[in-house]
Amino acid sequence: MKAALHTVTSAPELPAYVASGNECALFEHAWRHQLPVLLKGPTGCGKTRFVAHMAARLGLPLHTVACHDDLTAADLTGRYLLRGGDTVWTDGPLTRAVREGGICYLDEVVEARKDVTVVLHPLTDDRRILPLERTGEELAAPKSFMLVVSYNPGYQTLLKALKPSTRQRFVAVEFGFLPSEQEIAVVSTESGLSPERVRPLVGLAGRLRALKGHDLEEGVSTRLVVYCATLIAAGTPIADAVLAGMIEPLTDDVDVKAALLDVARAMIG
Amino acid sequence: MKAALHTVTSAPELPAYVASGNECALFEHAWRHQLPVLLKGPTGCGKTRFVAHMAARLGLPLHTVACHDDLTAADLTGRYLLRGGDTVWTDGPLTRAVREGGICYLDEVVEARKDVTVVLHPLTDDRRILPLERTGEELAAPKSFMLVVSYNPGYQTLLKALKPSTRQRFVAVEFGFLPSEQEIAVVSTESGLSPERVRPLVGLAGRLRALKGHDLEEGVSTRLVVYCATLIAAGTPIADAVLAGMIEPLTDDVDVKAALLDVARAMIG
Amino acid sequence: MKAALHTVTSAPELPAYVASGNECALFEHAWRHQLPVLLKGPTGCGKTRFVAHMAARLGLPLHTVACHDDLTAADLTGRYLLRGGDTVWTDGPLTRAVREGGICYLDEVVEARKDVTVVLHPLTDDRRILPLERTGEELAAPKSFMLVVSYNPGYQTLLKALKPSTRQRFVAVEFGFLPSEQEIAVVSTESGLSPERVRPLVGLAGRLRALKGHDLEEGVSTRLVVYCATLIAAGTPIADAVLAGMIEPLTDDVDVKAALLDVARAMIG
Amino acid sequence: MKAALHTVTSAPELPAYVASGNECALFEHAWRHQLPVLLKGPTGCGKTRFVAHMAARLGLPLHTVACHDDLTAADLTGRYLLRGGDTVWTDGPLTRAVREGGICYLDEVVEARKDVTVVLHPLTDDRRILPLERTGEELAAPKSFMLVVSYNPGYQTLLKALKPSTRQRFVAVEFGFLPSEQEIAVVSTESGLSPERVRPLVGLAGRLRALKGHDLEEGVSTRLVVYCATLIAAGTPIADAVLAGMIEPLTDDVDVKAALLDVARAMIG
Amino acid sequence: MKAALHTVTSAPELPAYVASGNECALFEHAWRHQLPVLLKGPTGCGKTRFVAHMAARLGLPLHTVACHDDLTAADLTGRYLLRGGDTVWTDGPLTRAVREGGICYLDEVVEARKDVTVVLHPLTDDRRILPLERTGEELAAPKSFMLVVSYNPGYQTLLKALKPSTRQRFVAVEFGFLPSEQEIAVVSTESGLSPERVRPLVGLAGRLRALKGHDLEEGVSTRLVVYCATLIAAGTPIADAVLAGMIEPLTDDVDVKAALLDVARAMIG
Amino acid sequence: MKAALHTVTSAPELPAYVASGNECALFEHAWRHQLPVLLKGPTGCGKTRFVAHMAARLGLPLHTVACHDDLTAADLTGRYLLRGGDTVWTDGPLTRAVREGGICYLDEVVEARKDVTVVLHPLTDDRRILPLERTGEELAAPKSFMLVVSYNPGYQTLLKALKPSTRQRFVAVEFGFLPSEQEIAVVSTESGLSPERVRPLVGLAGRLRALKGHDLEEGVSTRLVVYCATLIAAGTPIADAVLAGMIEPLTDDVDVKAALLDVARAMIG
Repeated sequence: MKAALHTVTSAPELPAYVASGNECALFEHAWRHQLPVLLKGPTGCGKTRFVAHMAARLGLPLHTVACHDDLTAADLTGRYLLRGGDTVWTDGPLTRAVREGGICYLDEVVEARKDVTVVLHPLTDDRRILPLERTGEELAAPKSFMLVVSYNPGYQTLLKALKPSTRQRFVAVEFGFLPSEQEIAVVSTESGLSPERVRPLVGLAGRLRALKGHDLEEGVSTRLVVYCATLIAAGTPIADAVLAGMIEPLTDDVDVKAALLDVARAMIG
Repeated sequence: MKAALHTVTSAPELPAYVASGNECALFEHAWRHQLPVLLKGPTGCGKTRFVAHMAARLGLPLHTVACHDDLTAADLTGRYLLRGGDTVWTDGPLTRAVREGGICYLDEVVEARKDVTVVLHPLTDDRRILPLERTGEELAAPKSFMLVVSYNPGYQTLLKALKPSTRQRFVAVEFGFLPSEQEIAVVSTESGLSPERVRPLVGLAGRLRALKGHDLEEGVSTRLVVYCATLIAAGTPIADAVLAGMIEPLTDDVDVKAALLDVARAMIG
Repeated sequence: MKAALHTVTSAPELPAYVASGNECALFEHAWRHQLPVLLKGPTGCGKTRFVAHMAARLGLPLHTVACHDDLTAADLTGRYLLRGGDTVWTDGPLTRAVREGGICYLDEVVEARKDVTVVLHPLTDDRRILPLERTGEELAAPKSFMLVVSYNPGYQTLLKALKPSTRQRFVAVEFGFLPSEQEIAVVSTESGLSPERVRPLVGLAGRLRALKGHDLEEGVSTRLVVYCATLIAAGTPIADAVLAGMIEPLTDDVDVKAALLDVARAMIG
Repeated sequence: MKAALHTVTSAPELPAYVASGNECALFEHAWRHQLPVLLKGPTGCGKTRFVAHMAARLGLPLHTVACHDDLTAADLTGRYLLRGGDTVWTDGPLTRAVREGGICYLDEVVEARKDVTVVLHPLTDDRRILPLERTGEELAAPKSFMLVVSYNPGYQTLLKALKPSTRQRFVAVEFGFLPSEQEIAVVSTESGLSPERVRPLVGLAGRLRALKGHDLEEGVSTRLVVYCATLIAAGTPIADAVLAGMIEPLTDDVDVKAALLDVARAMIG
Repeated sequence: MKAALHTVTSAPELPAYVASGNECALFEHAWRHQLPVLLKGPTGCGKTRFVAHMAARLGLPLHTVACHDDLTAADLTGRYLLRGGDTVWTDGPLTRAVREGGICYLDEVVEARKDVTVVLHPLTDDRRILPLERTGEELAAPKSFMLVVSYNPGYQTLLKALKPSTRQRFVAVEFGFLPSEQEIAVVSTESGLSPERVRPLVGLAGRLRALKGHDLEEGVSTRLVVYCATLIAAGTPIADAVLAGMIEPLTDDVDVKAALLDVARAMIG
Repeated sequence: MKAALHTVTSAPELPAYVASGNECALFEHAWRHQLPVLLKGPTGCGKTRFVAHMAARLGLPLHTVACHDDLTAADLTGRYLLRGGDTVWTDGPLTRAVREGGICYLDEVVEARKDVTVVLHPLTDDRRILPLERTGEELAAPKSFMLVVSYNPGYQTLLKALKPSTRQRFVAVEFGFLPSEQEIAVVSTESGLSPERVRPLVGLAGRLRALKGHDLEEGVSTRLVVYCATLIAAGTPIADAVLAGMIEPLTDDVDVKAALLDVARAMIG
């Protein structure tokens, strides 16, 4: 199942998105039956855009939290702040989402601290509750509430991985890069560069993605191809734009960079 | 001794549960003789449901705490909060359970910080007391109070394991997956999919569980089979539902995923 | 020198205890000459009970502290708490014991943080003082004050061990399991099961203890034998009670568990 | 693409800078199309000066943050401070930059704590927002806002490296040392020493830079050559100035220092 | 240079001490010329007693601080405490000693946190000042102020060692165990057991000390011999007293303990 | 380039110092041209004394900070303290030095926490500013302000080393021990012992310094020779004074100590 990063046509208010598989229907089924969803896929393949699209399509508010090494359960649920000498409870983004309904999206969830699972588990089984130990409340999630989490499988390590007891609480969808023609259309629309001039850039991106795992930690994202095309459309020489937009962001290794430049020169001229 | 995750018939107020062994009698004996109980078993095999069932059956309030890496003794017993410039003691869930009686259930107790044992030990020997060092109180547990802890033996590591001095304070019960016919009935009831259509899904789950330890960290839970059947009942093509509900949540490894898909195709067609 | 966990006869107010050696006389001599005492021995062998017994026998109040990974000197001595915008000093359990006299018992002292030694050292040499740096006080221990610490030598690691400079401040006593006949009497009294029915359980416990170090981290405690006998007296089938009370609490390893069950079946039938 | 550290002529208000490639045009294109920029290069090669130059040229305020091991997201976004018993929100430098527009420059961004990425990601994709979880605000960056980050690839380690998911959000430019003639002009202008007397110092610097990776962790920066020339212009003997300005700051190793002195004596005499 | 732990005769107010070398004269010279002193030696060899003796002899107040893993500079110098909503500075023990004069004794100084050196260095060179960064004060030590530190060389590890830049700020004295006849006299006086009955105990202690480094981490201290003799004088059988006072406190290893018992039986009978 | 620890003649107000090279002129040039200075050298070789001398000579206030493991940027720049329920900013020593001008001397700078570089970098390039993120201020250093840092190259480890990006911001000077005749004069003046009696001590110090790297972590400092001579002048026997002043402070190793004593006996007699 593959999903699109950007799309050619867009409706006002609804973030543009063209499905490359059945991911929209699956997401809607999951939401209607109150199943939480896990999105897997590499950097910049459109997971965030997909969630924004679905939230707009289903008419749901979207609460996004970018997870990181120091994110704790309290950052999600809330904490007491000092106000006028007294402590006042302040809801976190997850608590707000549970109170108001809608989608709560935890981006790169494996980065968060381990105590975050404590608030996810009771929300992702048949209880669908959010216990707030500090206030003594136990919030029941409304029907419209849906939990969506994402991560990049390429980054998982022994220290940073979802435990099976957490993973098995989600319906999971894998995202990948766009097929060439779709990617050309997306890049052309986003950058204003003609499809004919975008085609070799997308071709180069495909070649660079094939090197992932050998010399590169991760393949070039569609976002970088858009950057590169934008610079070219603004008048930057092609070679400079490719270097700044598609080579330098990938690696610092002198030898790898030389190899990538060889590939680029052979394909772009 | 095997215990059921879900059951076919359910009475109002009493969470549905069908015992697969003598675990209900054993639990009741333990409660009557004030012995603490330790539940062992894999993800989603019904430990939490079993405790909810027994609490309702014995007419006891149930206090559940999901343990995690940062959970400390103070999260269980309580702490001082600032109120109007003064510090006010606020009971934690364990303290509330000891004051009011009933079951206090610590889910995945091995995840908690080590100082938690300090509040468990005096509650699990013949003293049955909860000393609150911060307030200077020493609460005696009422007869109705029972401590139940659980963990998943598959996760134990050198760093995260119950010390013998803690383990030996509990009567222990091991839980496993449901026998096939019971699991088919449970999944059919929960998902609304007919038992005939559920049967191959449960068969597939059994095959995937047999791979645990080789390629998979943990076998597929009954919860995931319910997810998969729910998606099928909602109109998702079977292959898509199996992928999203029973394969993607298990692994990110390309080779393992391909192997699981081969198994699935052979069994589901 | 062996000491009893529980005893058959008990006097009101005085926790039952039958000495298996000269430990009571030794303890009393140490108390009279103001020597601190260190109790060594495995889980559940009766160290805590022995201290409670001696405290009652000598007519001394008993202050018990269960030590853990996060226990600091301040948890023992006290700290400033905020009251009405002001900081008010609150004694910890050790400080209370020094002010009021009696026995202060630090259970599993090797678990405590290293700064705890700072309050133990001046209390265990000829100064017998407790300096409270935060308040500027220096309390002299009264004649009746006695410091008792315990630990389980089986748990000591490089990171968690008493330094010689601390150990050499204590008279030390080692505790072990009860002789069979004494253990049968204790278990029978505690569980209500007849001595004849207890005898094979105690025999099994002896066999399981002999496996310690090979397959088991620690042998079965008398407490677990009491649990097992209690379940049998309550009507649980013997095999189920042995599994839940004497096997499952010892190990999660499938092969070790099978070996223990073989031993159990051979001895219990 | 190479960029100059310092330049010979300077205009009032505009920090002097002579481009050695197309980096100025590229930077301006990136700013006009709202693309974030990543500057890579060794110590003291002029990255900070380049950003100051471009900020002045584009008429933008410049907010600089030197990143370090303990820099957290809150240091960038802001925090609550206690004022008169109440907590008052105080903007951090990134928040001020987003509110007011202009360039926010994070120097040596790989040094910062991992939670910093959480505030960079939504600012570097098409949302261009800064979510302030603590205040509940979500600031939209104005058109004039631009995020620039820099780091030294020579320092990256496994623990300290930009994740691909962060790197791929930037157009990247690599900086190196100045060509000889340009460096001679810069050093002469900055130090007041005549170009003929500067020439052998720059020649020596080139030789020392060639040793990087073998005996030296990093080559001598143009800044150090300016220091050396300044000391000579002030009357310090050449050998002393070279030792204090170009040898001692590079190494503490006795053998390496002797080798560097040999090189210096051979070239300077 | 050897120093005595305890002595036979004692004057009121002056802690008993019999010098075994020139340590008293050396200490007094150091004090008169304002040189700081470092005492090295094993557990319980009398370092603390020696300092108490010298303080009394020189008529100086003695401020003792037992150092530990968590002791910081602020614990020595002082900190702000909240009083009535305001922060009030409270001197630590080192600051009090500098303000009032006299000896400040840091016992086991290698245990303290590294920032402690920051307050020791300016006090131990010709400045003799204590800078209090938090209050902005810079206290000049009076002539009578003397800094004394001690540690046990047997415990030093790579992580816990005095840096040369700290060590070289002290005149150093090494302490050892007492010669036999002096130790017999001390033990007899302290325990009330006759010298003839003490003699074999001291002989045994000498044998056990010779095993240090092979099977024992540290030899038996004079304090333990006193404990053992005290128990014997109170009526404890000799074998029991030796076991509790001189064997059990030394080791938990079964084999080592058996070897020590063999030695004890051969010597005591 | 060698510098003297102490000198024979001293002027009132000006700390005595006799230059052994051109270090005074170099320091003055650096100060006039606003170049920061880095002093390298072993323990007690006179770096601190040199800075005090130069500060007095140039008529500048001197702000000294002894760096340590826990020293953070906030310790240098300042922090908010609670006063009457409000937070009041309090300048740290570096901020005071920047506001008032003069020399700020960070002793053993490699010991400080890594975030300290964040305040050093903008002060050591052409900006010469101190940004105070917490108050929002950006202080411009006055012309008289000079930053001086020192460290001991012998202590640098992988974890504790100046990064090139920090080192290359300083003119660097290396310090060593005094030539014999100068050292004899210094020791004689400081201790009151005649030069003839000091000569063999300085000779012994030279021999012991030659052992550095083999058996000794660092050679004996001039300070220790002064201690030793002071004890001898006070009447301590030479052998005792050498042991306490020049041997015991260097090592705890029994074999090394024996070797040092052999050297001492051979030279002192």
